[in-house]
Amino acid sequence: MNTIIDITAYMLEVGKNARTASRTLASATTKQKNSALMAIYQALLADKEAILAENSKDMENGRTNNLDNALLDRLELTESSFDSMLQGLKDVQALPDPVGEMSDITYRPSGIQLGKMRVPLGVIGMIYESRPNVTLEAGSLALKSGNAIILRGGKEAFYSNQAIAKCIHKGLQEVGLPANAVQVIATTDRQAVGKLITMNKFVDVIIPRGGKGLIERITNEATIPVIKHLDGNCHTYIDKFADLEMAINIAVNAKTQRYGTCNTMETLLVDNAVAETMLVPICQAIVQADNSMQLRVCEQSMTILANVDNFKDSLQGHLTQANAEDWATEYLAPILAVKVVENIDSAIAHINKYGSQHTDVIITNNYQHSQQFIREVDSSSVMINASSRFADGFEYGLGAEIGISTDKIHARGPVGLEGLTSQKWVVFGHGEVRG
Amino acid sequence: MNTIIDITAYMLEVGKNARTASRTLASATTKQKNSALMAIYQALLADKEAILAENSKDMENGRTNNLDNALLDRLELTESSFDSMLQGLKDVQALPDPVGEMSDITYRPSGIQLGKMRVPLGVIGMIYESRPNVTLEAGSLALKSGNAIILRGGKEAFYSNQAIAKCIHKGLQEVGLPANAVQVIATTDRQAVGKLITMNKFVDVIIPRGGKGLIERITNEATIPVIKHLDGNCHTYIDKFADLEMAINIAVNAKTQRYGTCNTMETLLVDNAVAETMLVPICQAIVQADNSMQLRVCEQSMTILANVDNFKDSLQGHLTQANAEDWATEYLAPILAVKVVENIDSAIAHINKYGSQHTDVIITNNYQHSQQFIREVDSSSVMINASSRFADGFEYGLGAEIGISTDKIHARGPVGLEGLTSQKWVVFGHGEVRG
Repeated sequence: MNTIIDITAYMLEVGKNARTASRTLASATTKQKNSALMAIYQALLADKEAILAENSKDMENGRTNNLDNALLDRLELTESSFDSMLQGLKDVQALPDPVGEMSDITYRPSGIQLGKMRVPLGVIGMIYESRPNVTLEAGSLALKSGNAIILRGGKEAFYSNQAIAKCIHKGLQEVGLPANAVQVIATTDRQAVGKLITMNKFVDVIIPRGGKGLIERITNEATIPVIKHLDGNCHTYIDKFADLEMAINIAVNAKTQRYGTCNTMETLLVDNAVAETMLVPICQAIVQADNSMQLRVCEQSMTILANVDNFKDSLQGHLTQANAEDWATEYLAPILAVKVVENIDSAIAHINKYGSQHTDVIITNNYQHSQQFIREVDSSSVMINASSRFADGFEYGLGAEIGISTDKIHARGPVGLEGLTSQKWVVFGHGEVRG
Repeated sequence: MNTIIDITAYMLEVGKNARTASRTLASATTKQKNSALMAIYQALLADKEAILAENSKDMENGRTNNLDNALLDRLELTESSFDSMLQGLKDVQALPDPVGEMSDITYRPSGIQLGKMRVPLGVIGMIYESRPNVTLEAGSLALKSGNAIILRGGKEAFYSNQAIAKCIHKGLQEVGLPANAVQVIATTDRQAVGKLITMNKFVDVIIPRGGKGLIERITNEATIPVIKHLDGNCHTYIDKFADLEMAINIAVNAKTQRYGTCNTMETLLVDNAVAETMLVPICQAIVQADNSMQLRVCEQSMTILANVDNFKDSLQGHLTQANAEDWATEYLAPILAVKVVENIDSAIAHINKYGSQHTDVIITNNYQHSQQFIREVDSSSVMINASSRFADGFEYGLGAEIGISTDKIHARGPVGLEGLTSQKWVVFGHGEVRG
């Protein structure tokens, strides 16, 4: 699987092929793109056994190479994960085509009629780790939005990805679209990544998905714009005008509904004015929801929380003193940082300093505070009185998402089909010349 | 002017200051920002003599260093260019504030109300060459859109830029906004540019303005997203269904109204079916508008154009055989490349291959061709029956522009205040949790 010797020449070829294919994709009709997605669906269905066999090969290699269980878990294609992968493909097919959509058409004083038309970005470069279903997901989103895509999956999923790619190519060719619209890099050599993220002539945007280390490396080395999701250190701030019952419900949901997701609460901030009355019941409810919960608390929180002497309600055993690192940590685990802040200004300052600009929430019934919070918190999603867990493409109505961007350029927050497009200006004239 | 020894430490300080200032700017009110712009206006007016004196110093140095006349021209601040610089500032003040604008607010099935809010990007890094008025223009656009900006002007305009910066700082401080919102780098050391374009932590977007060499170097080295304008190789395609009179009017305007602008036509494409009838009158009209016009023509055009034997109408003396390089050249001069193409498909292929994705025009009265052209030409502005000269921020109603982007990511075409902003998701909840 590593027989390509001249990586530079190989990647140049991949890039050129993608650029050429992107021209055809950009002017493909909605009908053609949907037919391709359906043909890919059929090809995958027909090749199901073969794909699962290739995946077993990857799993075996993974076990031989002592991959950890979490990684093996993400790598494995079961009957049921295969089916839901195919369902995802159907969902993408059902989404409206963003390409060609025109908006803001107005007459200018000169007489020209000016508007915007949504168009594909061109070529997407995607770098991801173990999950082979990303190959299909990213490929189908790119296709639907009229883009060509170059996929670089993890080496541990090499055989699975190649088997899925074969079906994608079959589907594309069946409807007369270029197979090169979706290319899966056929080498696991890391040099290929270095080439991919610097081929400005052939690639328009890089989307990395994976651990923080991978994403930081790519951002530092890429000369092509990167749409990235770095981490999700999400806050819930209990304002002094919060409703206690609502605060409890939302905090429990935001922290305990799922741990591995980027929109899970990692830090709870409580206004000093209500720390004495609200901190204990909120933390008790969270611990009650998951008795393995660890609370990393500030000094003042410790004083309040360690003071619950009723044995049944005691939080002892769940409490540790927080250190500065805790404020900046995405635990992805039953661990919660807890801090008392002086007021809304300190809460906002804390979030903007330690947060990851992902999703942050205020619980309040005060109009002015709600307005200040959504205006001043510099995150991709800012919420009033709702669980941060709502921050995703499906809940936002975008359909499938290719990632959640914690950047500000181009796309922010959940990135769906629209994030894979751009807008061009269109001018409908009647012979106008400039005076 | 080059007394800063530790450029790394200096730029780190500049970056940190900008990031801190950007937080204040982001939550500044429209009234506050407008007052600052007015205070800057007053400060510039009061310092007019001093600024012009500093500019004279730059001009003197420029002459000593044998800068060419075009460069000196751009560098010079006259009474009248100073006044129009101030008028530009007033125009920016009069623009609506994009920050805080909310859109697309809808209820989701979960009960949350979801929308988007326009917010500043954060910190802009701008690199430009000789024109000192850019310092004020970029500074005022950044301020109005709630961004901090780091400006790196050309070394030839050093004293002028510092004098203008002094007034900007005075104005900012007068209304209680941080002077660091607009920083002009106080060294001409080129290392500073290298630092600026790789400080991902402190800078959100880089906007270079200048020659192609400068922009290519910055794009290659930057690790921060770049909004760039590379070049404007604009085409006008005379379709076989064009109206001849309209074709003549638009071609003359697009080529001869101004030469130094990026939206000027550089290549004229003519459909083979009408080459015999339209090429001669169009070229004659262009040459008539400027007798110094040189036509770099394809073989077929040469046969047709060299064949005009009427002495008065003869194009002899204006004709040269084009070579491949001509199709990719932005002349910015009374030179026009001319090519006969087989049909609309070849025209589109030529434009997408040789063009710079800036502005391209079709002249046609055929519905299907007009639709195909706007759909398939991959440029930031695509026009039907209008002069490419319309492609700018003022004509498009954006007000002042900070540049014209030939990229697809984030901003495309003329970039005004909106291009300096992003959107965040806002969620108005009522206690909703995720099921």
